[in-house]
Amino acid sequence: MHIRVIVPILANAWGDDRGQMYCAAARAGTEVSIVGVDWGPASIETYRDEALAVPDILNKIVAAEEEGVDAVILNCMADPGLFAARELVCIPVVGPAQASMHLAAMLGHRFSVVTIFDQDVPSVEDLVARYGLSKRLASVRGINIPVLDLHDNPERTLQAVVGAAERAVREDGAHVIVPGCTGLGGLAPRIQAGLEERGCLVPVLDPPSVAVKTAEMLVDLGQSHSKRTFPNPPIKKIRWPVPAAFGQAQEG
Amino acid sequence: MHIRVIVPILANAWGDDRGQMYCAAARAGTEVSIVGVDWGPASIETYRDEALAVPDILNKIVAAEEEGVDAVILNCMADPGLFAARELVCIPVVGPAQASMHLAAMLGHRFSVVTIFDQDVPSVEDLVARYGLSKRLASVRGINIPVLDLHDNPERTLQAVVGAAERAVREDGAHVIVPGCTGLGGLAPRIQAGLEERGCLVPVLDPPSVAVKTAEMLVDLGQSHSKRTFPNPPIKKIRWPVPAAFGQAQEG
Amino acid sequence: MHIRVIVPILANAWGDDRGQMYCAAARAGTEVSIVGVDWGPASIETYRDEALAVPDILNKIVAAEEEGVDAVILNCMADPGLFAARELVCIPVVGPAQASMHLAAMLGHRFSVVTIFDQDVPSVEDLVARYGLSKRLASVRGINIPVLDLHDNPERTLQAVVGAAERAVREDGAHVIVPGCTGLGGLAPRIQAGLEERGCLVPVLDPPSVAVKTAEMLVDLGQSHSKRTFPNPPIKKIRWPVPAAFGQAQEG
Amino acid sequence: MHIRVIVPILANAWGDDRGQMYCAAARAGTEVSIVGVDWGPASIETYRDEALAVPDILNKIVAAEEEGVDAVILNCMADPGLFAARELVCIPVVGPAQASMHLAAMLGHRFSVVTIFDQDVPSVEDLVARYGLSKRLASVRGINIPVLDLHDNPERTLQAVVGAAERAVREDGAHVIVPGCTGLGGLAPRIQAGLEERGCLVPVLDPPSVAVKTAEMLVDLGQSHSKRTFPNPPIKKIRWPVPAAFGQAQEG
Amino acid sequence: MHIRVIVPILANAWGDDRGQMYCAAARAGTEVSIVGVDWGPASIETYRDEALAVPDILNKIVAAEEEGVDAVILNCMADPGLFAARELVCIPVVGPAQASMHLAAMLGHRFSVVTIFDQDVPSVEDLVARYGLSKRLASVRGINIPVLDLHDNPERTLQAVVGAAERAVREDGAHVIVPGCTGLGGLAPRIQAGLEERGCLVPVLDPPSVAVKTAEMLVDLGQSHSKRTFPNPPIKKIRWPVPAAFGQAQEG
Amino acid sequence: MHIRVIVPILANAWGDDRGQMYCAAARAGTEVSIVGVDWGPASIETYRDEALAVPDILNKIVAAEEEGVDAVILNCMADPGLFAARELVCIPVVGPAQASMHLAAMLGHRFSVVTIFDQDVPSVEDLVARYGLSKRLASVRGINIPVLDLHDNPERTLQAVVGAAERAVREDGAHVIVPGCTGLGGLAPRIQAGLEERGCLVPVLDPPSVAVKTAEMLVDLGQSHSKRTFPNPPIKKIRWPVPAAFGQAQEG
Repeated sequence: MHIRVIVPILANAWGDDRGQMYCAAARAGTEVSIVGVDWGPASIETYRDEALAVPDILNKIVAAEEEGVDAVILNCMADPGLFAARELVCIPVVGPAQASMHLAAMLGHRFSVVTIFDQDVPSVEDLVARYGLSKRLASVRGINIPVLDLHDNPERTLQAVVGAAERAVREDGAHVIVPGCTGLGGLAPRIQAGLEERGCLVPVLDPPSVAVKTAEMLVDLGQSHSKRTFPNPPIKKIRWPVPAAFGQAQEG
Repeated sequence: MHIRVIVPILANAWGDDRGQMYCAAARAGTEVSIVGVDWGPASIETYRDEALAVPDILNKIVAAEEEGVDAVILNCMADPGLFAARELVCIPVVGPAQASMHLAAMLGHRFSVVTIFDQDVPSVEDLVARYGLSKRLASVRGINIPVLDLHDNPERTLQAVVGAAERAVREDGAHVIVPGCTGLGGLAPRIQAGLEERGCLVPVLDPPSVAVKTAEMLVDLGQSHSKRTFPNPPIKKIRWPVPAAFGQAQEG
Repeated sequence: MHIRVIVPILANAWGDDRGQMYCAAARAGTEVSIVGVDWGPASIETYRDEALAVPDILNKIVAAEEEGVDAVILNCMADPGLFAARELVCIPVVGPAQASMHLAAMLGHRFSVVTIFDQDVPSVEDLVARYGLSKRLASVRGINIPVLDLHDNPERTLQAVVGAAERAVREDGAHVIVPGCTGLGGLAPRIQAGLEERGCLVPVLDPPSVAVKTAEMLVDLGQSHSKRTFPNPPIKKIRWPVPAAFGQAQEG
Repeated sequence: MHIRVIVPILANAWGDDRGQMYCAAARAGTEVSIVGVDWGPASIETYRDEALAVPDILNKIVAAEEEGVDAVILNCMADPGLFAARELVCIPVVGPAQASMHLAAMLGHRFSVVTIFDQDVPSVEDLVARYGLSKRLASVRGINIPVLDLHDNPERTLQAVVGAAERAVREDGAHVIVPGCTGLGGLAPRIQAGLEERGCLVPVLDPPSVAVKTAEMLVDLGQSHSKRTFPNPPIKKIRWPVPAAFGQAQEG
Repeated sequence: MHIRVIVPILANAWGDDRGQMYCAAARAGTEVSIVGVDWGPASIETYRDEALAVPDILNKIVAAEEEGVDAVILNCMADPGLFAARELVCIPVVGPAQASMHLAAMLGHRFSVVTIFDQDVPSVEDLVARYGLSKRLASVRGINIPVLDLHDNPERTLQAVVGAAERAVREDGAHVIVPGCTGLGGLAPRIQAGLEERGCLVPVLDPPSVAVKTAEMLVDLGQSHSKRTFPNPPIKKIRWPVPAAFGQAQEG
Repeated sequence: MHIRVIVPILANAWGDDRGQMYCAAARAGTEVSIVGVDWGPASIETYRDEALAVPDILNKIVAAEEEGVDAVILNCMADPGLFAARELVCIPVVGPAQASMHLAAMLGHRFSVVTIFDQDVPSVEDLVARYGLSKRLASVRGINIPVLDLHDNPERTLQAVVGAAERAVREDGAHVIVPGCTGLGGLAPRIQAGLEERGCLVPVLDPPSVAVKTAEMLVDLGQSHSKRTFPNPPIKKIRWPVPAAFGQAQEG
C-alpha cells in the first residue's frame, strides 16, 4: 500500500523531517511518500492561508492518483481542500482533523481541540460543525504560539498544550484531547503523560497517526468517499498562471 | 458610496452585462464598479471551482480596499472566499447567499434554495449550516441546467426554476424562495409571477439586489464584520506564481 | 418612502424625542413618522407588558397601511406583536430585534444581547430561538436598570452596558454586541468606543438604525413577509371595549 | 381542589357545554369552574386572535388566584398567554398544548399534532420549539375546517381528524397523536378507535383531560412554575380602556 | 388503582422503608405495592449496574401485569430497562427520571439534575438527550457521595445537595431542580427550603412523587405507551440460568 | 494482535461460521477468536433481547481482558452493552454500529441504515443520536425479514436490502449505506454492486469489517476509550444466579 502525504505549506527547516511521523505510524508494508506544494503559504493559520494552499494541493492530489497512490493524507488540521480534493479523485483523501475528531467522538463523551490561537475558535468550531460533531465538542482552546515558532522551544510548546488540555478537562468537561495542528504531531504521548501527571488522564490522539491508520483502513476495506457527495467536476475552461490540470485537461 | 462587485469567474459572452443588475439595484448616488478575476474557472459549480476562484478574489478584495471602495460584493451564491476576504480588509464584504438567506429567514417560516444541480444539495446545505440557518431551510432543489447554459434558453431556465420552486412550496413547505445562482440574477420578479400563476405566491428574493442593499445598509450604518471573527492574517512567506499581495507585502 | 415607527409604550418625558434617532438613521428622502399607542404599559419588560401592548399596536399597524405608509417598525426589542401584525398587513413590519440579530449573525461568529434584567434571559433566549439563531448566540446579559430609569443617569447606564458587553466578549465569546432595549437606542457608537478602550473592539449594532435600514431595504426591493407564514386572519366576531378594527370590519 | 378553566373565546352555542369535558376528566373531589372572557375573538386561529384574547385572560387569571382557586387551565391549544399568566400568579397555570405535548413525548418516539388549518403549521411548530420538543415532533397536519364549523358536522370532523392522523402515522412516523384544538376535546377515544380500525393503533391524547390531570398533579405535589422563569412584573403605569388590574393596582 | 413499584436493587437496611415515600405520594384509593429484585446489584451507579438490574426488572414487570396491576414505577433515576419493559407489557411503565424531567421542563426555562457523582454527567446527559430534552437542561452536578452512603449522614447529604443545587441556580441558570437519585427521595421539600434560605427559591421536584402522580394520570386517562415505539418482542429461544419468562413462554 | 469477537446470541446453525467474516477482514498477523454467550436470546431484535444479552457479554468482556486479548468486538449492530463493557476493561471495545456510522459520516453527506424491521426505526435513531450523528443520518429503512430468517433465502434477503438501500438513496438522500444487522455481514460488496446496477453507486460499508479495522487501528495507536467517560464501577454487592464476576470479586 502506498500512502501519499501532501504537506500543504512551503518547506522549512523543521518541515524536512515531517515525513518521519507518518512513516513511523504506518504499518509494515505501507509505503509513505511525502510531497510538498510549489505555491502557497509558509503555514496555515487563517482562512487566507488555507485558500492559498488549496490550488496546488489539488494538483498534487490529481498527480497522486495518476501515479497509482492508494490514498492521500492532507498534513494540516484545517483539512485544507478536503472536499474539493475528493471531487477530483476516487482514491481516499483523508483529513487528519476529520479522522481524529470522529475517533475522539467514539472514545469519549466530549473532546476538546487544543489549537494554535484563541482566535481560531470560530474556524475550528465551524470545521467541527461541518463534520456534524458539534454536540461532541467540549471546547476549543488556543496555546497562542505561532505555528512556525512551535519548534523553537519544544518544552514550552509541550507545557502550553498540556496546560490548555488540563483546563479543557477540568473546566470544559473534555474526555478526549485532539491537538489542533499537525505541527504538534508526535507530541501526543508526552501530552497524555503530562496530563496524567496532573491527574487528568484522558486519551490524547495524534492526528497524523490517526490519519495514517484511517487511510490504511479505507484501502483495506476497498472503500472511499461517496461520489454522490463529491461528484467529479465538469470539464470547463480554467485559466491559471502556471500549467495546472486541476483534474481535467487544461485550458486557458 | 462606491460598491465594488467582484465577478469571480472568467469573462464570457453573457457575463459582460452582468454589472447591469447590480447597477439597477443600487440607489441613486451609489456607484457600482464591476471587476473580474484574471485566474480561475469559467463558472463555479463545485468545490474545485470555488477553490480556484478564491486566490484572485482575494487580490481583488485587497485592491478594492486600497482604492477606497466602501464595500465589496462577491457575485456568486457560493460566497466564494467570503471568510478569507474578510480577514484581509475592514470594509464590508457581502456574500449574496449569506445576505439573502438571512433576509429569507426574516420574511417567512422556512425558505428553499433553487440551485443549479441536484448534486449541489450537500454544499448548499453545508453553506446554510455554516450561516446557522439550517432550522429555517425547507429544502434545496436543483434545476439541472449548467451555469453556462442558463442563458441559452432563458424561457426554459425560467420554467425550470418556477417548477422547482413550486415543488419546494407545495411539497417541502417553503415560504420564501432564494435562487441559488447569481446567473439567475434579475429573474426573481418573473419567478415570483410564475409562482403566483400557479397559486404559490411567496417572496422570491433576488440575491444580487439583496447584496447591494445589504452593502448599502452596512456602509450607511458604518459597520462591518467583526475582527474578532476575521482577524488580520499575520505576515508570512507566501510563494505564488505571479505577483500577488494577498493582503500583505509579498515575499517569495 | 414613508416609514412609520410605532412606539408601543405610553408617552413619557424621555420618550418624546424618541423619534429623533429614527429620523437620524433614515436616508434623505425617507419620511419617518412616529405614532404612540393609546392603551398599554409604560414600558415593556415582561410577557405581561408585551401582551398588553400588542392589541393597540395592531390597530396602529392597520392604520399605517391604510394611510399608505410603506413600512412599519415596532420600537421595542421584544418585537411585540410582530407575527400578529404581519398577518394584518402586506407592507413590511420590521422588528428591531429580528433585524439586528440576523445582521449580527452575518457579521461575526456569535453575538451577545445586553438586555435590561438578568431575569430577561429566558425571554430573550426564546426570541433568539424563534428566529432560528440560537447557535449564533453567545450569551444574554442584563444590566439590571429598569427601562424607565435608563435615562436618569445616562453615564451609569452606558458604563453598565459597556461592562456587561465586555464580559460577553471576554467570557462568553461574543464577537458582536446587540443592545437588547430600544431605550438604549443611539448609544451604540459610545458602547463600541467604550469596548475599544477596554481592548474589546467588536461591532455594536444600533437596533433602531438597523430597523430603519432594513425597512428601507425591503421597500427598495419591493418585498415583504411571506403570506404563507402570515396569512390574513379570517373575519370573525371580536368584542373589544373600545372601537378597534384589528384588521377587519368590526363587530361586537 | 378547585380548578378554574378559562375559556379564552367569546361564548357561543356549542361553547356553553364546554365545561362538561373538564368536569368529566376531574377526579372525585375536584371542583371545576368555567369562566369566559369579556373581550376578545370568537375563536383563536391566528396570532391576531391570540393577541386579542390574552389581555382579558390575564384579568381572569388574577381573579382566579384572588378567589383561592388552586390551579388554572387555559382552554385553547395555543396556550394563549401562558407565560404572561404565570408571571402574574403563583398557582399553577396549565396549557393543554404544553401538557399534552410533553406527555406525548413520554409515551412514544415522535408525536404529530392534527390541527385546524394547514397554514397553522408554522405557529404549531414554533410552539413545539418553544417547549423544547422539536426533536420529538413527527409532523403537523391540518384538517382545514374552521374552529367554529367543527361541530356543524361532527362526523365529518371526526373523519377528517382520523384521516390526517392516519397519514401522520403512516407517512410521517407519528407514534402518538395530539389533537391540536380544544374544540376537538373529548373526541380522542373515537379518533383512537378510528385509527385502530385502519390498522394504526396509537395513543390519541385528549388535551383537556391531560390538562386537568396535570393541574391535579401539580396541586397534589404542591408545585408550580418557577418564579425564576416567570418573575412577578414590576408595578408600572398601565392605561386600559376598561378597569383591569393585570396583576397590580391599576393606574391610568 | 394498584401501582407497583419495582425497587431494582438488592434489599438493604435503609431500603426497607423505601415504600413509604411512594405510599405517601399516592392519593386515597391508590394501592402501592413494592417489589424488589432477586438478582442484581446493591445500587445502580454505573452502566454495569444498570445492565445487571434490568433482566430481573423485566421479570417483575411481566409479573405485575399478570397480577392485574394498573401501572408500574421503576424506583431508580436511571429509568433502568424502561424501554425494554414497555415492550413486554401494555400497562404504563413510568420512569421517575423521564416523568420528572418532562415536568421540570414544563415548569421553568431550564432544569439541573443534582446527581450522585460528577462522573455520572455523561450518562445523565445521554438520558436527557434520549428523552429529547437537552435544550432544557442547564447542567448536571454531582454530590460525590455513594448511593449506599446517602443515609449515613442525612444532614451532610442534604447540605451537599443544597450546595450543588445552589451552584446550578447561580452559575448554570437552573430554574428547576431535579434530584438525580431516588435515594434522595422525599428530600425535595427540605432541599427547596434550603435553597430558599440561600436566596435561590426554585421548584425542587421529588421524582418518586412525580412518578406516582404520572402513573395515576395515565391510569386515569386510560393511556399508556405507544406500541408503535415499543412493539411486543417476538417469541424466540432464550436461555437463562434460572426460570424466567421475560414476556414469553420460556425455552432453553 | 489478538482480537476477540463476542457473538452475543445463542449459537445456531448459520452462526457457526460467523467467525469467518471477521477472520477474513483481519490483516495478516491479527488473530481473531470468537466467543459466544452462555445465556441470552437467540437473536437481538428488541430492547428486551438486548437487555438479556448484556450480562453475559460483560462476563465475556472481563474474561477477554484477563486472557490478554488486545481488543474486543461486539458482533451486533445494537452495540449491546458497549458502554457498560467499557467501564469494566481498559482494552478497546468496538461496536460495529458506532464504528460504521462514524466512518459513513466521514465518507459522505448523509448515510442511511438498512435494518431488519421498520419498527426498529426508533431504536436505531436513538443509537445514532447517542453517537452524536443525527445530523448525518438520512433515514432508517427496514427489510422486514426476521434475523433468524435472513439466511433462509439469501437472494431474497439481498434483494430486499438493495431495494431498501435504493429507496434510501433516491428518496432520502443517502450517500452511504450502513447495513443495520451483522447478520448481513459480508453482503456489502453484493449490495453495492446491486445498487450500482440500479444507477445508485454509493459506498456500502460492511460493519464487521469496519469493526475489525477499527480495533486494529486502536491497538496500533495504543489508544482506547476514555476512562473519564467510562470509569471503573465501584466494588459492590451483586447477587447473580450463577457465578459471574462482572468486573469485580464476586459477592452474594
